[in-house]
Amino acid sequence: MTDKAPDRGKKAIVVFKPSGKVAEVEVGTLLSDAAVQAGVELNLPCGGQGRCGRCRVRVEHGAISHHSGVRLSTSEIADGWALGCASVVKGDAVVLIPEQEKIAVQYITKTIGAERIALAAEFSGEVDPSVRRVHLVIDPPSLADQTTDFDRLRRELSAQARISGVSASLPMLRTLSRDLRDADWDVTVVLDMGDPTIDTYHRPRLIDLLPGDQSDRCYGVAIDIGTTSNVVYLVDLARGKVIDRASAYSGQIAAGEDVISRIIYAQKRDGLRRLQQMVVKTLNGLLDELIARNQIPASQIGKAVVAGNTTMIHLFLELDPKAIREMPFVPALSQPLPVTAEEIGLNINPQATVDCLPMVGAYVGADITAGVLSSGMYDSEALTLFIDVGTNGEIVLGNRDWLITCACSAGPAFEGSGVRYGMRATAGAIEEIWIDQRTYEPTYQTIGEMPARGICGSGMIGLLAEMFITGIVDKGGRVRRDLPTARVRVGDHGGEYVIAWAEQSGIGHDIVITEVDIENLIRTKGAIYAGFEVLVRSVGLELAEVEQVLIAGSFGQYINVEKAIQIGLLPDMPWNRFHYLGNTSALGAFYSLVSRPMRRAVNEVAKKMTYLELSADNSFYEEFMSALFLPHTDISAFPSVMRILERKAK
Amino acid sequence: MTDKAPDRGKKAIVVFKPSGKVAEVEVGTLLSDAAVQAGVELNLPCGGQGRCGRCRVRVEHGAISHHSGVRLSTSEIADGWALGCASVVKGDAVVLIPEQEKIAVQYITKTIGAERIALAAEFSGEVDPSVRRVHLVIDPPSLADQTTDFDRLRRELSAQARISGVSASLPMLRTLSRDLRDADWDVTVVLDMGDPTIDTYHRPRLIDLLPGDQSDRCYGVAIDIGTTSNVVYLVDLARGKVIDRASAYSGQIAAGEDVISRIIYAQKRDGLRRLQQMVVKTLNGLLDELIARNQIPASQIGKAVVAGNTTMIHLFLELDPKAIREMPFVPALSQPLPVTAEEIGLNINPQATVDCLPMVGAYVGADITAGVLSSGMYDSEALTLFIDVGTNGEIVLGNRDWLITCACSAGPAFEGSGVRYGMRATAGAIEEIWIDQRTYEPTYQTIGEMPARGICGSGMIGLLAEMFITGIVDKGGRVRRDLPTARVRVGDHGGEYVIAWAEQSGIGHDIVITEVDIENLIRTKGAIYAGFEVLVRSVGLELAEVEQVLIAGSFGQYINVEKAIQIGLLPDMPWNRFHYLGNTSALGAFYSLVSRPMRRAVNEVAKKMTYLELSADNSFYEEFMSALFLPHTDISAFPSVMRILERKAK
Repeated sequence: MTDKAPDRGKKAIVVFKPSGKVAEVEVGTLLSDAAVQAGVELNLPCGGQGRCGRCRVRVEHGAISHHSGVRLSTSEIADGWALGCASVVKGDAVVLIPEQEKIAVQYITKTIGAERIALAAEFSGEVDPSVRRVHLVIDPPSLADQTTDFDRLRRELSAQARISGVSASLPMLRTLSRDLRDADWDVTVVLDMGDPTIDTYHRPRLIDLLPGDQSDRCYGVAIDIGTTSNVVYLVDLARGKVIDRASAYSGQIAAGEDVISRIIYAQKRDGLRRLQQMVVKTLNGLLDELIARNQIPASQIGKAVVAGNTTMIHLFLELDPKAIREMPFVPALSQPLPVTAEEIGLNINPQATVDCLPMVGAYVGADITAGVLSSGMYDSEALTLFIDVGTNGEIVLGNRDWLITCACSAGPAFEGSGVRYGMRATAGAIEEIWIDQRTYEPTYQTIGEMPARGICGSGMIGLLAEMFITGIVDKGGRVRRDLPTARVRVGDHGGEYVIAWAEQSGIGHDIVITEVDIENLIRTKGAIYAGFEVLVRSVGLELAEVEQVLIAGSFGQYINVEKAIQIGLLPDMPWNRFHYLGNTSALGAFYSLVSRPMRRAVNEVAKKMTYLELSADNSFYEEFMSALFLPHTDISAFPSVMRILERKAK
Repeated sequence: MTDKAPDRGKKAIVVFKPSGKVAEVEVGTLLSDAAVQAGVELNLPCGGQGRCGRCRVRVEHGAISHHSGVRLSTSEIADGWALGCASVVKGDAVVLIPEQEKIAVQYITKTIGAERIALAAEFSGEVDPSVRRVHLVIDPPSLADQTTDFDRLRRELSAQARISGVSASLPMLRTLSRDLRDADWDVTVVLDMGDPTIDTYHRPRLIDLLPGDQSDRCYGVAIDIGTTSNVVYLVDLARGKVIDRASAYSGQIAAGEDVISRIIYAQKRDGLRRLQQMVVKTLNGLLDELIARNQIPASQIGKAVVAGNTTMIHLFLELDPKAIREMPFVPALSQPLPVTAEEIGLNINPQATVDCLPMVGAYVGADITAGVLSSGMYDSEALTLFIDVGTNGEIVLGNRDWLITCACSAGPAFEGSGVRYGMRATAGAIEEIWIDQRTYEPTYQTIGEMPARGICGSGMIGLLAEMFITGIVDKGGRVRRDLPTARVRVGDHGGEYVIAWAEQSGIGHDIVITEVDIENLIRTKGAIYAGFEVLVRSVGLELAEVEQVLIAGSFGQYINVEKAIQIGLLPDMPWNRFHYLGNTSALGAFYSLVSRPMRRAVNEVAKKMTYLELSADNSFYEEFMSALFLPHTDISAFPSVMRILERKAK
């Protein structure tokens, strides 16, 4: 990260404009590290690999060496532009940081898009949280009974509530004597009872001591840490109900848009610690929102259960994720040990247990085990295919008796990366589109009914399906150049289709989809479909035998099944076998929070899941190659699509 | 601690001379708090009660309000002298701090006195420490075996060493993946195995991971936190041997000389935290000394076992000691839960367990349970009286079947307080004295053979005995005024005896013992003797039935039994029943460190000990009153003393 030049160790002053913030750094320091030191925001969406070009800065004066110009034109470089992640401070300098995309502060709950996330966050089983409140009236000590404070408390917990073997952390013991006396020995004891079946979490632990009888109030939070967005449910533990929820884009997006970029960022100096602080900052923002809106003090929140993919859980706990990315793809652990909110920095009761759900492998994380739990799949007799499509496609096949899982590196095409006008599902994104069979003119709908700014994942699936069915693209993904419409043309990236003309768009120029975009989309859907095939065949079955397909993830619920079948993303089967489940990860965290039997079940789920490593499976590549067509090389596997094409051909 | 005057909230600048250090404080702040803020040393030997007068300062300019002049003369007050602990800043001021007694930096190991502390720190039982090192060669992960790092480590520990259920803290897990790979999967795992019989400490816990085979090296420390001095033994855990030891006066002396003063200091703002930091600073100084001298890295020290009285253990753990001092005298806890070195701030391996031994009551602490263990009393058939004389006299009576204990608030007379020329056992202290029967001229021996500066505890016992046997004092403690010697005279505090004339003394004036001093000494010895009587009689026995008397404590080993019997401090029985044991507290910590069976035994000892609260026992006051004579009201209980007096009378 630093030059080995002889002037190493020398200091240089870097002034960042427009804020005027200053960093004094060693010569040889990366400009992006200098920005961190100065407290200046400089997003690194690719994790600082020099790939995305979005950390561009302009050097106004001084000595900066530029190590990469991949994303910059010759004239831009001549004009002083440089990439923050690939430039090194050589001496004093003045650097202009352009305005950064404000990702971290854009709360989903405050955007129009979020209104559409409808989730029935209810738990119908028996409410049995690990957090328990016990009201105790204790005889104060006397010369005749000099039992110590903690021994007295334990004695009364055993006598009055049959709870024994309670432990306590040092910070709790430090205030114990005063708390008991201030409350005049009439207290509500807040305990995390743990779970006898979880060996690292089986003892009751004192987490708070409150004056008087406060045994009726008891809160917890269920947290889903997504790569893109984070969600927190505030839960009334006594009633087993979600009271409120809040979500926001991950503050980590500034350090990489996908898990691989973040793992790369984590290898930078202080990168891992910074990533941990970023996720905690985002979550604390959500907690503060929930606390303020519901007027519940942070200290009353006595537990957090956390789900998320393997990388997100590693970054949350500040565990080194390096080996997740490198062959043979191994996480630091599968069952995170319970920690306290204080250790993590989460703004709830400092003694609250933070319980991360178990993971299966490097790319099948706690979001999937939570999903298998909350979907009910783990307890179903029907042969079920559970899918969560995001940057990676995670797939689980099985029923109550067995579970097999794999992850396909689908790529972030559906999330907007690798597609020129791809974007997240926020205001101005095209989410649905129809193309006229004869005129090739599109009709589309945008989020927030605003002028189009780009296309989100569901829009891309719809667009590709419409272009295929109307014949704008052929089954190989090539745009037909002979159509009688100005919307089809040849651009820098080969054939392209104009979705919105500059005048109608919200960005001042044409919005198009190119053959390169289409190739990326086909690779993505092909990887996922190949995953289905390999998984099903690995247990000697056929896709047609699958009785239900459960689609998880916030993106999943916007997938139009008909269109997804038409492009060969989903298998061709009756639509009533498909079910949208929404955020099954947050739901699984919620279930595990309010029910210890559910918490045990998710551990059983994780143990039961057999992880199929696709990179070690020869059949995957074959299946993937076959799936790189619309809808598939073997059109007979898509009878409904075949019928449409036949009808059209008539 | 602050005035409620309307100028509260206003700031004032206090300059401390001669250092020139400055504090900016709120008006109303105590001068002693301002000194802490400025980083200026100002000792508060009485804990800041305004009693001892040793925090005197001179106000040269500015506005300081003086709340107490108890320890200052009118002329001193007129001259600007004030007590730092009882004066309040009213505005900007310049304050001179006289040179402070350099207690905190005076290492006992470097003084002459310490050379005399000879201790056979050996353990003859089977060495079985809780810290265990296991060398593992682990198959690295592969695509065929993607077991996570922590699961893999646990699997190999189970397979290769039959150790299961290992837990790990977050900091350990954070470096695990890198450590395993850096060591190329050839590692030495350092574990604290815990103890299955201790419910809060029963799981094996990972404390370090080292490259290659380092299973032969394994260290720990046994710590004794005394009120006056702290001792650390560096122990080779593999061999069960003390390698080296270091001791120093407690840095807490600056905040009070006895436990009561420290408890008072702990109630001041930040006082408890400061006391915790003081003891850790002293211990870290000793650890640094041991680490440097033996060239053992701090990280190789994998465990600390700590003994000390109840208040010292509370302050070490930063537990509020307030209730120890107030009726009905209740500690926060009896069995401290194991914590990590990191939580405490101890400079050994941050993950090392710091295990404080169990306490019995407010004034019978882990020093006594450790002493009962290391003395072997807990396993002896003989009726044993165990005594530890310091500020308090702690007494244990019993054998392998039963144990009963009490603490007598003896007062700090033997430690130098309440006796005008009393001092600690350092250079210049009179430690032995003989008085000529006819001339009343004394012959004495000082520590370091330097001119006398005062009298230490053993010297006081000898002096009082000699004065009594030679008839200088009568059995009521009054100095006979009719003796033919200039050494007996009447001073400000009644009759007094000149031990050293100004010319011979090391302090430029006469060293005397007064009737007030003698009264304090008699009260102290009387309280201890009364304790023996009450304890023995509470179980229906007589003192004469005691088969052995074990004298613990570093002071204890300097007590001359003959003289102690003559003043009625020790019961009159054959000298061969008395045994000096030295620092049984440190020794008990050492035994508990190297042997898990011994660690279990000390818990059994603590549970078995019945605590007799003397302030709730009517017979104590009666026994105490009877013991306020030389040697005792009932001279028949001291037949050997009776014979000497009879022989003399002839």
